[in-house]
Amino acid sequence: MSSSETQEQAPPQPDNSAAISKKAAKKEAAKQEKLRRKQELAALSATTSNLSVDDDPLASNYGDIPLVELQSKTPVDVNNWSRIETLEPSLKGHQVLIRGRVQTIRPVGKKMAFLVIRENGYTVQCLVQVQPDIVSIQMVKFAASLSRESIIDVEGEISVPDSAIKAATQQHVEVQVRKLYCVSRAVPNLPINIEDAARSEVEIEKALQEGEQFVRVNQDTRLNFRVLDLRTPANQGIFRIQSQVGNAFRQFLLSEGFVEIHTPKLIAGSSEGGAAVFRLDYKGQPACLAQSPQLHKQMSLCGDLGRVFEIGPVFRAEDSYTHRHLCEFTGLDIEMEIKKHYFEVMDIVDRLFVTLFDSLNQNCQKELEAVRKQYPFEPLKYLRQTLRLTYEEGVQMLKEVGIEIEPFGDLNTEAERKLGQLVAEKYGTEFYILYRYPLAIRPFYTMPCYDNPEEYSNSFDVFIRGEEIISGAQRVHKPDLLEKRAEAWGIDVKTISTYIDSFRYGAPLHGGFGVGLERVVMLFCGLNNIRKTSLFPRDPLRLAP
Amino acid sequence: MSSSETQEQAPPQPDNSAAISKKAAKKEAAKQEKLRRKQELAALSATTSNLSVDDDPLASNYGDIPLVELQSKTPVDVNNWSRIETLEPSLKGHQVLIRGRVQTIRPVGKKMAFLVIRENGYTVQCLVQVQPDIVSIQMVKFAASLSRESIIDVEGEISVPDSAIKAATQQHVEVQVRKLYCVSRAVPNLPINIEDAARSEVEIEKALQEGEQFVRVNQDTRLNFRVLDLRTPANQGIFRIQSQVGNAFRQFLLSEGFVEIHTPKLIAGSSEGGAAVFRLDYKGQPACLAQSPQLHKQMSLCGDLGRVFEIGPVFRAEDSYTHRHLCEFTGLDIEMEIKKHYFEVMDIVDRLFVTLFDSLNQNCQKELEAVRKQYPFEPLKYLRQTLRLTYEEGVQMLKEVGIEIEPFGDLNTEAERKLGQLVAEKYGTEFYILYRYPLAIRPFYTMPCYDNPEEYSNSFDVFIRGEEIISGAQRVHKPDLLEKRAEAWGIDVKTISTYIDSFRYGAPLHGGFGVGLERVVMLFCGLNNIRKTSLFPRDPLRLAP
Repeated sequence: MSSSETQEQAPPQPDNSAAISKKAAKKEAAKQEKLRRKQELAALSATTSNLSVDDDPLASNYGDIPLVELQSKTPVDVNNWSRIETLEPSLKGHQVLIRGRVQTIRPVGKKMAFLVIRENGYTVQCLVQVQPDIVSIQMVKFAASLSRESIIDVEGEISVPDSAIKAATQQHVEVQVRKLYCVSRAVPNLPINIEDAARSEVEIEKALQEGEQFVRVNQDTRLNFRVLDLRTPANQGIFRIQSQVGNAFRQFLLSEGFVEIHTPKLIAGSSEGGAAVFRLDYKGQPACLAQSPQLHKQMSLCGDLGRVFEIGPVFRAEDSYTHRHLCEFTGLDIEMEIKKHYFEVMDIVDRLFVTLFDSLNQNCQKELEAVRKQYPFEPLKYLRQTLRLTYEEGVQMLKEVGIEIEPFGDLNTEAERKLGQLVAEKYGTEFYILYRYPLAIRPFYTMPCYDNPEEYSNSFDVFIRGEEIISGAQRVHKPDLLEKRAEAWGIDVKTISTYIDSFRYGAPLHGGFGVGLERVVMLFCGLNNIRKTSLFPRDPLRLAP
Repeated sequence: MSSSETQEQAPPQPDNSAAISKKAAKKEAAKQEKLRRKQELAALSATTSNLSVDDDPLASNYGDIPLVELQSKTPVDVNNWSRIETLEPSLKGHQVLIRGRVQTIRPVGKKMAFLVIRENGYTVQCLVQVQPDIVSIQMVKFAASLSRESIIDVEGEISVPDSAIKAATQQHVEVQVRKLYCVSRAVPNLPINIEDAARSEVEIEKALQEGEQFVRVNQDTRLNFRVLDLRTPANQGIFRIQSQVGNAFRQFLLSEGFVEIHTPKLIAGSSEGGAAVFRLDYKGQPACLAQSPQLHKQMSLCGDLGRVFEIGPVFRAEDSYTHRHLCEFTGLDIEMEIKKHYFEVMDIVDRLFVTLFDSLNQNCQKELEAVRKQYPFEPLKYLRQTLRLTYEEGVQMLKEVGIEIEPFGDLNTEAERKLGQLVAEKYGTEFYILYRYPLAIRPFYTMPCYDNPEEYSNSFDVFIRGEEIISGAQRVHKPDLLEKRAEAWGIDVKTISTYIDSFRYGAPLHGGFGVGLERVVMLFCGLNNIRKTSLFPRDPLRLAP
């Protein structure tokens, strides 16, 4: 194993990571600190530059791992590595092997360097210090030459420092490094610094008041370098919360007798109509990407699957440049037989989401805390039994505070927010159901209302923190009525004939709903942009990475 | 509630459901039986045709439920309905309400009709018999007029018959009908009869030998009328098994610290290269549908998610007309950091699939039995620890039986099958891993082998019953090598620059694999066509329903 001759003389200090002190004193102090480090490195470099690895009898204790060893011959026991999370004072004197990313590098003089190593959100400080027969001066140089975010293997002994190490999550242990190998080097100048990307707006503002100016990493830069952005504690939290939302969603539904299905995303015709559809050529046939699994999940019920759900991508070619629209997102979709009334569907919404919220609060405490640290939010207020209001009641509540809504029109974003606020004040919940929507603003397959089938429908929306996240309804199961409704919507019935025909062979009463996974996470965590909860978001302007 | 004046005088007898007796005796018997039923119905009709519902004081006890009641005003307790599955002799004398499909209708004289009602795979016989003040002759007529597969509500008293009822799964109870309402009528002539679609090839062949000819419903007809085809017991089983595969897959991985992710299906450039890609216009940019989540799942690891998995659609525009290719299928994809060796990935494959198979055998007995009844198969043979052979060993085994494989080429379908057979004979398993594949036949992102990086790779395939289901490998995490490999594959590196750049910021050693959900179900159940395990399959010729 050989050490690489790196050209970097200093730990990488990307341009946008520097803290620019404004108040003179602070500024000066920072300047001095920088200078000191620079001098240290220069000294280190001067001392060691004429020392090559070839001269070092301890050269096998450190270095970049060559490719051929990364294409390893022999399997090893993965338990040889300790997780940083598990390092604690009781291990004092133990030899450990850890793998992680270099989070910070701090050389002290020429014979010593501190590394903070990160793994899965946990960090530990490692000390590389010259020691006869163990750690050479070249090895310290090698440690100082590492670039931040590089992945390294560290072997060393656990020691217990006199005072807590503030720079690491594992504050009461330190690793005395014996061996140090680099698995994968990061480029010296990262386009985003993780500390910058991880800083809260509050910290930035506070620093500003103290005369210090931190780099703000804007949303677009984050997304351009998403693989770096994802390494922040908040993002590590967000995508683990997202995973838990999917898991809780499924576990609840499976326990209620639902079957998970996978419906085609490539469909003939024009999906549910409208312009917001991606079109493509399918082996010579005109096709499009499903705007939702709506038609096929209903057809699955006609095929006697009884209660179904799907988690999968849905595609909307809308030109929406809002904080809450994406061109591709993950739909959580449900469809179920009902005996009599669409409240049976709302009952599932109610129990499902209360269970889901409970599960997040119980199982994702660490993750929620990580999100909250960067993006502060209040825990979601929800009732044990979800509040239900009619659309008319909602309109009336808005009217009472002077907001007029066209009675058969839809709520705009502003009205939704206002209503959310009024409901929260009156009922103490930020999660509620609004039902009995005007028919005119619901999709063609929505069942009209028993007592006013021209104007109202058996449908509902659900809101979190004043924003719509769920849309649901009883569906029309009578093929003649379905055909009539589709025609009234200007849909070419021929293009959806296999769908309509499905209801001619005896169709169960049924209803269902759809939720956007990214919206659930965004609103539960009180985030301000859906791009924060989509791993690699797609909007009208973004198709990469 | 009013009865509908239906025009059908006989229970529906679709053209393709008739059993055509060949041996004279059988034929004659069947003819006589048909004639008898026809006469009975005619008699019934003659007796009742002048009796209108208006004359019937008991008219409220039966009829088609009008639409307005299906848009019901008041929620009801869904527990009012008993599930057919739960009906048993201990309920004798109890009043029950059940909802289900009319599976068969058998009028006996003018005052009596037997209905077999099906719900979730369970059936019960119901008797509608004229009784003063309860069941009118018009009600019996109404019962006889129902079309098969219509959905009805039946209220009645549980009785216990003297002898077992062979025509129903609930053989020791019968429902004495008091009220009978039709929720949703099926057209009288169904394009597929469920009995025909549910019959095994063995039954058809056996009947042929006895001179009787049943209708064979071919694969295309089944798929054209998929919502009917799905109602067969085998298909009810298949899609519940599919749901369980997904569940077992996820539960295992979550318990191993994997995070579920959702990567974009709309991507710039040309995915992983090759011709088999669906292209489309994305807001003026050229885009395509992801052929797998490969690039993005690797990028998620570069974003420190550690271990990830995804269940989602993958798109292949291949012109493959085989029994095992689809243009859209559900991919189960995994990517994980490794410490040293790609066997760490194979260890996950091993434990994951043994757990999965165990879970299917334990939790899906009823479903497997339903599949087996129509499509007989032997339970999958697999070892507690999965067999691993090198590709060279596989080639050698084939050579020994006279099959020559080009040593750096791939196995064709025939060779795969033969090898599967040889392995089963020698090692007693139908599930095994073949590793150390030639580099030339693996994707560009595959890590070359340590000792022969020009010819071999750190990769593996996994086989069930002699067919490949899993493809996996260690991936190249060095950006320079990755670029070189992509170029060698003729991929325009510019189109995947965000992917390659992801490895410049410190990339973990990693590997992963992908599985087709439909293939797992197909091969576990020994089915002969992947269209049987896709809910609404897409192949080069099929884009509907």
